[in-house]
Amino acid sequence: MIKKPKIVILGAGYGGMMTASRLLKANVHQDAEITLVNKHNYHYQTTWLHEPAAGTLHHDRTRMRIDSVIDTKKIHFIKDIVAEIKTEEKKVILEGGELDYDYLVIGLGSVPETFGIPGVEEHAFSIRSVNSVRLIREHVEYKFASYNNEEEKHDEYLNIVVAGAGFTGIEFVGELSERIPELCEEYDIPREKVNIYSIEAAPTALPGFDEDLVTYAMNVLESRGVEFLINTPIKEVKEDGVTLADGTEIKASTIVWTTGVRGNSLIEKAGFEAMRGRVKVESNLRAPGHDNIFIIGDCALIINEEVNRPYPPTAQIAIQQAYTCADNLRALLAGKDELKAFKPDIKGTVASLGGKEAIGLVGSKKLYGVSASAMKKVIDNRYLYLLGGVPLVMKKGKLNFF
Amino acid sequence: MIKKPKIVILGAGYGGMMTASRLLKANVHQDAEITLVNKHNYHYQTTWLHEPAAGTLHHDRTRMRIDSVIDTKKIHFIKDIVAEIKTEEKKVILEGGELDYDYLVIGLGSVPETFGIPGVEEHAFSIRSVNSVRLIREHVEYKFASYNNEEEKHDEYLNIVVAGAGFTGIEFVGELSERIPELCEEYDIPREKVNIYSIEAAPTALPGFDEDLVTYAMNVLESRGVEFLINTPIKEVKEDGVTLADGTEIKASTIVWTTGVRGNSLIEKAGFEAMRGRVKVESNLRAPGHDNIFIIGDCALIINEEVNRPYPPTAQIAIQQAYTCADNLRALLAGKDELKAFKPDIKGTVASLGGKEAIGLVGSKKLYGVSASAMKKVIDNRYLYLLGGVPLVMKKGKLNFF
Repeated sequence: MIKKPKIVILGAGYGGMMTASRLLKANVHQDAEITLVNKHNYHYQTTWLHEPAAGTLHHDRTRMRIDSVIDTKKIHFIKDIVAEIKTEEKKVILEGGELDYDYLVIGLGSVPETFGIPGVEEHAFSIRSVNSVRLIREHVEYKFASYNNEEEKHDEYLNIVVAGAGFTGIEFVGELSERIPELCEEYDIPREKVNIYSIEAAPTALPGFDEDLVTYAMNVLESRGVEFLINTPIKEVKEDGVTLADGTEIKASTIVWTTGVRGNSLIEKAGFEAMRGRVKVESNLRAPGHDNIFIIGDCALIINEEVNRPYPPTAQIAIQQAYTCADNLRALLAGKDELKAFKPDIKGTVASLGGKEAIGLVGSKKLYGVSASAMKKVIDNRYLYLLGGVPLVMKKGKLNFF
Repeated sequence: MIKKPKIVILGAGYGGMMTASRLLKANVHQDAEITLVNKHNYHYQTTWLHEPAAGTLHHDRTRMRIDSVIDTKKIHFIKDIVAEIKTEEKKVILEGGELDYDYLVIGLGSVPETFGIPGVEEHAFSIRSVNSVRLIREHVEYKFASYNNEEEKHDEYLNIVVAGAGFTGIEFVGELSERIPELCEEYDIPREKVNIYSIEAAPTALPGFDEDLVTYAMNVLESRGVEFLINTPIKEVKEDGVTLADGTEIKASTIVWTTGVRGNSLIEKAGFEAMRGRVKVESNLRAPGHDNIFIIGDCALIINEEVNRPYPPTAQIAIQQAYTCADNLRALLAGKDELKAFKPDIKGTVASLGGKEAIGLVGSKKLYGVSASAMKKVIDNRYLYLLGGVPLVMKKGKLNFF
């Protein structure tokens, strides 16, 4: 009996889940032993996390058990944390064991980029997992609940700083501005006591996005009481607020850090050449010098040659990479040398602003308000459809369009 | 024109609210200027607070706007905090002003009794107001939300110490043991990781209550995982737990203090002779030596002559005192010298244990489980009926009997 080759997929984010799903659909499990490793027994939608972070959507709506989507009789699933990747030995060390592989797919995602600013790791929250976002939700509520329970009023309990006005920051601020009036009612707090600060070091919110859409987004959010501090770098994060570059102190008991991400630190630890944890992969998505290792999602760096800058890491790209990766794995298993080149097909970008508000760019068409908001839901549902078909859309989709 | 005499009622708890309500019903506002002072613009049901504290009932179900029950066109309502009572000058100093009175009703309630144990004020929560109980609910949730978000697991986040196994402590533990399984599901925590400790210095839980009923209650709660430490005084409270008299440390991030109450400190500050903030009032409920001051509710001490011990301060007694107090105010206004003597009529005592479980003693009849639970709801609804009639029962009552 010939031993089947072993494919190990690290991470069940957009890239890893979709790779597993594509391999299953092509019946690759008949010719290879496929193992998927993930920290949790569930998959979650990273791009939805700003909603449970603000408390406008329950976190269970953003996650699904892995075995409800992937047939774990056909693909082994291991719930464990990856400790180290040993490429020379073709081995992955887990906290609770180790795995050999013939082919490796690394889809380990990202961690928040702190830019070395002091205090971020100690005092700021981040929007990166089910665990981290329900803690934000509870932290905000806890501070609101504390406010009226103390003789001396701490106004900073009611202030929230969101560092970074990129996609995640803006989408979170949008949800938060919808949630605050509810929290004020729950805890007998006058709305005008609450301050939401959106602070961005770059000269504009949503850097790189269409100017008209940025203006629209800022107007919507300002009308809900969000205060923007643009072109305003943060020098330090403290327990009770942030210090701006010019020395101004902003008091806030809740600080959420959304200034971008970097690749998982295991990448550098494994010896791959990387920029901020991201490996500039070959066009077929393999790590340079490693014929049997694919890197996809937030750990992969792909240059957009039109502008000579990297594509931002998005779910859209991770999903498309999974298709190419699965195809290329099949080619390798079949003994073919010619692999497909990955070509991103950016269909559009939509940012939700909470409630029925959103902005979007589809091709060169600008979308505002309800039409953008509906488009955002179409995108979210499309992923669920690709992953689990109509049943998953019915179960976890966003079906409240208007 | 003759100036109307001024009646000032301090506190809108059971005693103050019911006094105001009785005076209104007898049209006393036509002959006197009546003013009710309260810290909040709402009245709440102290005896229900263990439920929102555990998160099994929303706090808004336990409170009602004062002007929704008391006609504030007929009785002045002032939302302010009482700072001082000057009996010689017949004046009440508020944080935001002052008030003259001819007749004063003091219904200022109680504060937790710490017995001077170090750390209680700094580190323990108490079940005494809407503000304090929603903070308990959020604190427990915050600790549960934090648990899975930290690399190193802090088991004490999941431990809850309830100091005192009297009525409030037992009722809170009952609700909590019902709530914990929901919290475990919400935050992906195995139930067996959570510990609820009910710690009591006296040789029994529910001291003074019928032994059979105490045994029943403990069995119910132990079957839900509550651990009792009876006959176990606490020596010190720290941020992360309690130290018992024998030196044992119990780690817990949530400590709720329910070892009884003492009268409001304003009582002693005003110069009344008091024991633990409670004034041994005359049989007509007036403060000794003060013909124009009534003290009712938790600040009043009444001796139960059958056992030669004070009646415990309960809602039942406060409500009954309000009836006598209102009658005696009317007598004084009418120039009568003979005042009514207060005679408590203890109809029964019921403690809820969460869910459909409860224990009760009505006369000499012992009630267990559903029948006691239903009786508890009858008692809660009866108060609402006395205060605001059928409409208030429909709006705020507990109508889910079985």
